Amino acid sequence: MLQSLNSIQKAYIAGFLDGDGSIYVRAKPNSTYRYGFQIAPYVVFFQSAKSKENFVQLCELMGCGYVRERKDGILEYIISKSDDIQNFLECVQPYVLLKRKQIELMVKIIQSKNAVATKGDFGKLLELIDSYRELNYSKKRIKRTLTP
Amino acid sequence: MLQSLNSIQKAYIAGFLDGDGSIYVRAKPNSTYRYGFQIAPYVVFFQSAKSKENFVQLCELMGCGYVRERKDGILEYIISKSDDIQNFLECVQPYVLLKRKQIELMVKIIQSKNAVATKGDFGKLLELIDSYRELNYSKKRIKRTLTP
Repeated sequence: MLQSLNSIQKAYIAGFLDGDGSIYVRAKPNSTYRYGFQIAPYVVFFQSAKSKENFVQLCELMGCGYVRERKDGILEYIISKSDDIQNFLECVQPYVLLKRKQIELMVKIIQSKNAVATKGDFGKLLELIDSYRELNYSKKRIKRTLTP
Repeated sequence: MLQSLNSIQKAYIAGFLDGDGSIYVRAKPNSTYRYGFQIAPYVVFFQSAKSKENFVQLCELMGCGYVRERKDGILEYIISKSDDIQNFLECVQPYVLLKRKQIELMVKIIQSKNAVATKGDFGKLLELIDSYRELNYSKKRIKRTLTP
């Protein structure tokens, strides 16, 4: 779906992403995962529920992800599958101006995530995720303990 | 400057406006104005000062307005001259998806503002501005007293 958009539509979405979108990744502690963490990347857009009709139309244009309405009346459009995020970022990357670094690093994180074979690989992936946090929020690094 | 942008640049800016931009107009009480109010339309974009370099570059692309840095570290790009707002909105209007109603009404407000000849005209302009407030915030109408 995304691939079939023309350059004007992709440029519009890139502008929307730069203005309103958020690209981030979390390492969520979860003991059912091999190394004790679920790696969860996201692309999210926010909008007041007042513009629901047009917002949903825009989201459908992108053809992946889903819309949810929060209790505070904010709509969130969420892309959370790694493949969808990768496709989405590839489509808009040439047109993005403000979030270039975030996109480059997120693409690298998803590639690393797909290639994890050892605990050492996973540790390096977490380091990448920490560097992403710094890019977005300038917070301090978190110390994590890998299992097993 | 804006007119010389290509359709991909205009589409990007339209997306950025839909995501991050704010289009609004205020009737500020001001006794030095003929009918007791200054009509002040704005197009404003917001961004964290962390992306200053790219944001300023983007603002320069638009070629009107100015950037200011707030004390809380948020950058604002402000277009406040009526002619600039009109030019800007004309350029991005074909590509905008979410803020179409705001643009239509703002164009109408600026045209009415330029055509005010009587107190009656000014009263009608204030009504338009009130309807704009409803579009943006769903607040109740304000009762205003015109001078003289």
